[in-house]
Formats: sequence, structure tokens, C-alpha cells
Amino acid sequence: MNLIESISRNIYPLEEKYVEQAQQRLDRLIKPTGSLGKMEHICAQLAGIYGRKYFDTSKKIIIAFGADHGVYEEGVAPDPQNITILQFKNFPHKINGVGTISKFVGAEVLAVDVGINCDEKLDGVIDCKIRKGTSNMAKGPAMTIEEAEKCIAIGIEMAEKCIQEDYTLIGIGEMGIGNTTPSTAIISSIGGFDPIEITGIGAGLKKELIEHKAQVIRNAIELNKPNPKDSIDVLSKVGGFEIGAMAGVILGCAANRIPVVLDGFISYAAALLAYNLNPRTKDYMIASHSSAEPGTEKVLGLMGLNPFLQMDMRLGEGSGAALSFNIIEASNYVYKNMATFDEIDMGR
Amino acid sequence: MNLIESISRNIYPLEEKYVEQAQQRLDRLIKPTGSLGKMEHICAQLAGIYGRKYFDTSKKIIIAFGADHGVYEEGVAPDPQNITILQFKNFPHKINGVGTISKFVGAEVLAVDVGINCDEKLDGVIDCKIRKGTSNMAKGPAMTIEEAEKCIAIGIEMAEKCIQEDYTLIGIGEMGIGNTTPSTAIISSIGGFDPIEITGIGAGLKKELIEHKAQVIRNAIELNKPNPKDSIDVLSKVGGFEIGAMAGVILGCAANRIPVVLDGFISYAAALLAYNLNPRTKDYMIASHSSAEPGTEKVLGLMGLNPFLQMDMRLGEGSGAALSFNIIEASNYVYKNMATFDEIDMGR
Repeated sequence: MNLIESISRNIYPLEEKYVEQAQQRLDRLIKPTGSLGKMEHICAQLAGIYGRKYFDTSKKIIIAFGADHGVYEEGVAPDPQNITILQFKNFPHKINGVGTISKFVGAEVLAVDVGINCDEKLDGVIDCKIRKGTSNMAKGPAMTIEEAEKCIAIGIEMAEKCIQEDYTLIGIGEMGIGNTTPSTAIISSIGGFDPIEITGIGAGLKKELIEHKAQVIRNAIELNKPNPKDSIDVLSKVGGFEIGAMAGVILGCAANRIPVVLDGFISYAAALLAYNLNPRTKDYMIASHSSAEPGTEKVLGLMGLNPFLQMDMRLGEGSGAALSFNIIEASNYVYKNMATFDEIDMGR
Repeated sequence: MNLIESISRNIYPLEEKYVEQAQQRLDRLIKPTGSLGKMEHICAQLAGIYGRKYFDTSKKIIIAFGADHGVYEEGVAPDPQNITILQFKNFPHKINGVGTISKFVGAEVLAVDVGINCDEKLDGVIDCKIRKGTSNMAKGPAMTIEEAEKCIAIGIEMAEKCIQEDYTLIGIGEMGIGNTTPSTAIISSIGGFDPIEITGIGAGLKKELIEHKAQVIRNAIELNKPNPKDSIDVLSKVGGFEIGAMAGVILGCAANRIPVVLDGFISYAAALLAYNLNPRTKDYMIASHSSAEPGTEKVLGLMGLNPFLQMDMRLGEGSGAALSFNIIEASNYVYKNMATFDEIDMGR
């Protein structure tokens, strides 16, 4: 039994006893039943994940993976490929989008190179480079099965490293020029969508190139024939190293009963890979914001996820996950600190 | 010229120069153009409101008004009417929904009684009681024209009091058992909707009573014939004291170039009254969350507002406005602190 199978077997359902205990407390807070909406859902879910009535969500981190993509050469992204490395250098210094938001919300950022197209070792970045970018999926598989398993394993390892350091709230992020293309390919493969239904502009592709991008994805799927029931196969044929690593974080979090906060569209592809491996992972996911990509509703619908931020953001990096940490913590604070009908005479 | 007209004449457009300066800075942050979505819109709007490139949003307050409603006796609300007073007592102690969230986000709460059905003076609550609740709009006007003007004036006064105390971010909230009914009546009158299109369960009315609630509203509109072009007339005939006061806060904020953060459905009715008086007020409004009430999209659509939180909350009090303070402050923090392409060599 390999690591992925073994981790997957260690993913258990939410502890219903604590979900119920949390819901009972929520129902006693001085408000109409259910009137805090998703704030309540988050708290009940967290109680079931941690297996405790009360829990701490203050030690938070974004695990962000950087990687490049062979399919870049098909003209699917507007930016030069070296933006991946130029931008990834900024992650440990917290001066980019996810970093600045993380500073505001009091979260750390762990930056991991799983496949950036450079020889340079990046200051403050963990070096887990598998290869300098995937192969071009328009011409063959993006990576080998071994590489697919390896990037997932790196994700699991990074999650467990953070969990050992007592982080109790983990978000996922990424940087990789062109990575909405493999993400859309993964979601099309597993979800059975025609790529044109869910292909968007990513970081700012010209609208007239969307058709081309969808065609590149469609061709890659036809050429490589990923097996939609086999996430490792899909990842190896039309995926990316950072996407596999994010799926690994989800598996690692779920097996260790730690909530994992999704970010935008790339993270949805990672979530779908994890969900397809083991649907129970979904119980450990918190969807933060709705990506501006057009496939958002479709892919989240496959997993029954429902984000609470509608920011029209399309930055990635983990920026939406970091922004949502505040709402998650606010929910926990209200759950713990709001008065109950038992404490206050409200005539109930 | 009365106070309301005079305040309304003092509402000027956003200062476009600063909107542009903010957008220029946002466009130089190390990210794809526009990729921070509504975080960027918020910052550009704030720059235009304050009339400065950089601004402080850390001193924040929710102004919450409590009042009762004569239409309560028509059976439009599930709770006993005295929940208004029992719950309003909790506002100054910050142990209720809006109070707990305000503690988390570092905001104050100002609680103002404009018409609660009680003789008691409430500890920590500003007493501006107009009358012990409106008259039953099912039988005649909810209040006189003078009372309508008075509750708006109280709102203006409270906004100006907070602005004098250097608050730079003001949210509105309310407590009043039955107040989705006058809110729906106001929105139906001004928006020209049949009440059944936008009537919801409020704080938890049984679904089978929605038809009844809509019929009460329809009858009140037919009986009182509010003039949809005249907000004071609409407020006096089918409104509520706390709703008028919230509209006053919006006018007071707009005239003093301070952003005003909406809460849920009741606040949308107040916003529509203010917008109907002077459409420029809209430029000073920030829509925080989408209320779970079914008329949400319709009323926000009338004003072109687009909230960023989708929490399925239906608590009121100012709870959604308070929760959104964090996102607004995060946006401002990112705007000020994220690196620019001028500072970092990113090859642009």
C-alpha cells in the first residue's frame, strides 16, 4: 500500500457528536435559530473536524506551491513564464497579494517550489522541485505516474510539517503561469465537461484566445485520454505539480483532522482530485471565495461546496483563502463569546 | 429649507481625481490588473469618498437603532414584541451578534432607541424615542410626516456625532420585531414590486404565513397610497422609526464624505429611501452582505449595489456590516502595503 492509499484510509467522517454539540450551542445563542447562516455552518464543521466542542483557529498558514507548465508554449497565458519565479520570490517576504493579506489576518505563508522553471535556489522557499516544469500536455502526458504521486506526497508532507508545528487552520495557494489550463483540463476530465463550458481568461488572457485555450485543453484530453475515475492518472496526464501538491495538502489535512481552506480556481482542481480519490476529503474543506473563472459554479457544485466570499478575485496565490481566515475566526469568536439564552433572560 | 433638504444639497459626487489616483496605485501592485476584484473597487471608492489617496479605516462604529412596529399586531412576526427591548438591552454590552462581531473586528456599537415599546430607560442606550412604536400601517399611516422627518434627523445627528468623534467607517444596524414588514413595504412601494415577489420569512416566520404577510403589506400600500417618488411620504405611511433613522445616517455620512456600510434587508430599505431622496448617496454606500431575504437581489439591483459577503445571514442588528469591516480594512491594508512593480523588478 503506497502513501496515498494509506493516507486516504486514515480519513474518517466528521465526529457527529461534536457537530451536534456545536449546533446545540449555536441554537442557544441569543438570535433567531440559524440566523448566522454560514458562520454557524463553519463552526459546526470545525467542531466535527477537530472532534471537540471548542477549538482554536488562531494559528494559521497558507501553504503555497510554485511550478511551471509545459503547455505554456501553446500560448494559453498572457504573461511571460518567468513571472512564476519573479513572483514566487516575493512569497516568503509577504509583499505580494497573499503575503500582504496574510500579514493583515495574522497568518504565515510557507512557499514550496515543486517545479519552477529555474536553477536558482529561492531565498526562504522550500526546495522540493520535481522537475523544471511539466511536459507540454498538448504533446503527451504532463508528468509520469511517479511524479504525480511524488507531488501529492510533497503536499502531504508539507501539511504534516505544519500540523506538527501546531497550525490548526491551513489554506492552499499557488503560483504558476498558465495553471488555469491544467486546472480546467483536470476539471473537464473528472467532471465530464467540454472545456469551452468552463474555460476563462485566467490571469488576463485576451477574450478572443479563450476558444484557442479550450481547444488546447480539448486536444490534450483527447490525446492523453485520462481516466476520469483515477485522479493520479488525470494529474499525470493533464495536471501540474503545484496542483498535485495542493491535493496532497488536502489529503494530509483530512487524515490529520485539520480544516483546509480552498482558494480559487486552481485550488478547486486540486480539491476535485482529492475528492475523486476520497469523497470524505470534502468534509475537511472550507470553500472561501468564488473565483471569477466561469467554471467555478460547476466544479464547486460537483463537490457541494458553497463559498462565502464573492470578491470577483482572480489572483490565486492563496489570497482568497487568507482573506477568508478572518471570517472563519470571526465565526469561531462569535460561537465562543456571544451570550446564550441561558445566560440572559430573553423570555425563552 | 429643512434639514433633510439642506443635507441632501451637501452631497457631492466622489472626487474622481482620488478615485483615479487610487486606481493607478492598484494597477501598479504586483498582480494582474484588476485581479483583486472588489477589494480594488472598495479602495477606489473610499479614495473618492474621503478625497484622499491614502486614508484610515481603523476607527469604526455600528450605529444601531431600536424601534417597535404597530403592524406587529397583524401577526407578521414569529417572536414576542418585547424581544425588541430584551435584545436591545444587550447592544451596549456587546454580547449579542453585532456586539460580539464588533469586538472581534475592533468596532464600537452605538445603540439608539428611536421608538421601542417601553417606558424604561435602557442602560447605555441613547434615548431619542419618538413614540412607543409606529401605528399599525394596516389601519392608517405608520407615522406623521413630522415624525418621519424627525427620525431621519436623528439618524443625521447620530452620524454627525460619530464623525465628530473621528469615526471614519460607519455601519448601520437595527432591532425591531416585525421590521422586515415595513422594509418590504418601502421596497415594494418605491420599487414597484408586488409584495409577494419580495416577502420572506424575516427572523423565522412560518413559510405558510408569507402569503399573509405579503397581503398585509399589499393592503397597507393600497390603503395608505404612499407616493413612490417621495421618500418621506413612503416612510411616514409604511415605514418604521429605525428605518428612517438609518436612512438619516446614510444622508449624514454622504454629506460628510464618510462611507456608510449597509447591513441586511432592513438596511436596504433605508438605503432605498436615501437613494430615492438623492441618488448620489449610493456612491457613499458599501453593501456588505447579501441578506437571505428573497427581495435582496431586486432591491440592490435598483441601486446597482453588489455585496461581497454571501453568508446566508438574516440576523440584522448590523452584524453583517460589522463582519464586513474586516474585509474593508484588509482591502485598505493591501492597497497601502502590497509591493508595486516600481519597487520590485518583475519585468514590467
